[in-house]
Amino acid sequence: MVAAQHEPGSKERILGAARDLFNLHGFHQSSMAELASSAQVSVGQIYRLFKSKEDIISAIVEVDSTERRNEIVALQNSLHNGEIDIEDAFEQLFLTALSDHEEALSFDILAEAFRNGRVGETIAMLCGDLRQCLHDFACAANPDLDEASLLQAKEMIMACMFGFGHRSLSRPELSAATTARGAARMIIAALRGIG
Amino acid sequence: MVAAQHEPGSKERILGAARDLFNLHGFHQSSMAELASSAQVSVGQIYRLFKSKEDIISAIVEVDSTERRNEIVALQNSLHNGEIDIEDAFEQLFLTALSDHEEALSFDILAEAFRNGRVGETIAMLCGDLRQCLHDFACAANPDLDEASLLQAKEMIMACMFGFGHRSLSRPELSAATTARGAARMIIAALRGIG
Repeated sequence: MVAAQHEPGSKERILGAARDLFNLHGFHQSSMAELASSAQVSVGQIYRLFKSKEDIISAIVEVDSTERRNEIVALQNSLHNGEIDIEDAFEQLFLTALSDHEEALSFDILAEAFRNGRVGETIAMLCGDLRQCLHDFACAANPDLDEASLLQAKEMIMACMFGFGHRSLSRPELSAATTARGAARMIIAALRGIG
Repeated sequence: MVAAQHEPGSKERILGAARDLFNLHGFHQSSMAELASSAQVSVGQIYRLFKSKEDIISAIVEVDSTERRNEIVALQNSLHNGEIDIEDAFEQLFLTALSDHEEALSFDILAEAFRNGRVGETIAMLCGDLRQCLHDFACAANPDLDEASLLQAKEMIMACMFGFGHRSLSRPELSAATTARGAARMIIAALRGIG
């Protein structure tokens, strides 16, 4: 019973250590032995909770994806309840994309998505939810948009969010807050201008 | 003399094989022995031309970066000579980003940019050129934009281009051509709407 109670703690500690280790040295460059040492557990304990290193990266993606999905749903609710307006909604949505502090890890995850079906599927499902959110937001910004413009807008805003997730490589000239505000203003202008 | 004449051929063959191998199996998951076998050269021949696997990825990034830079300059010239209008210019710029067929490799490259100074610097320099191009294009779309709006627009369009480079993970609903045309229309509307 004690072991069962400690289970979530070990799992979270291993995932936390895996994030730091993979972000710093890379997923493929890190061994299970190094992870065990970082997480202060035995290699056996890791294998009791995770089938493989691929299984660990899948678990990290699933945790992140659930968190991101909850943020999206909260924003949709705030907009529908009238707590925020559509410009705030886009601004806060962009801020969630801009707040990725594990950029190197996120590239390893995205590369892994091409070779690990479970990771690819998790990301595709999150993108599906995001598309639905973008659909709602675009209609809120301009209820007269036709179907073709809506599809194009979703594709473009989705790309923008992907790009915000790892813009540090481009040596950005503006803070996350200013970037999110500016992008929200541009997207609203675009959605109203093309309608 | 014969060896010297063959030198560029070997180098290109190794880089071509490295692209395919790294894209399929991952940069860190591929060995120099596998690369030698794919490129039909000896491991010694690879080390005569490249110091390390990191040196090979740097060379791939430099080739791609030069190609992308040439495309950007050609577009800027076409716009300035009046051969294309600003909407075509944005559309063709977005198409260059959307035409990445080695997406898995590009994530390995971007992850590597955090850990390999030469790769990071090459990407940052290309982004610098892209910023200059986006500055020109934004001013062509709306000459009255103030400095703050210009900075925000550049940041947002840059993110969009990054995102277009690897949108297949999001299971896109539109072709590259339709996406590029739609994004160009939205960006023009945004640049004119915020001015």
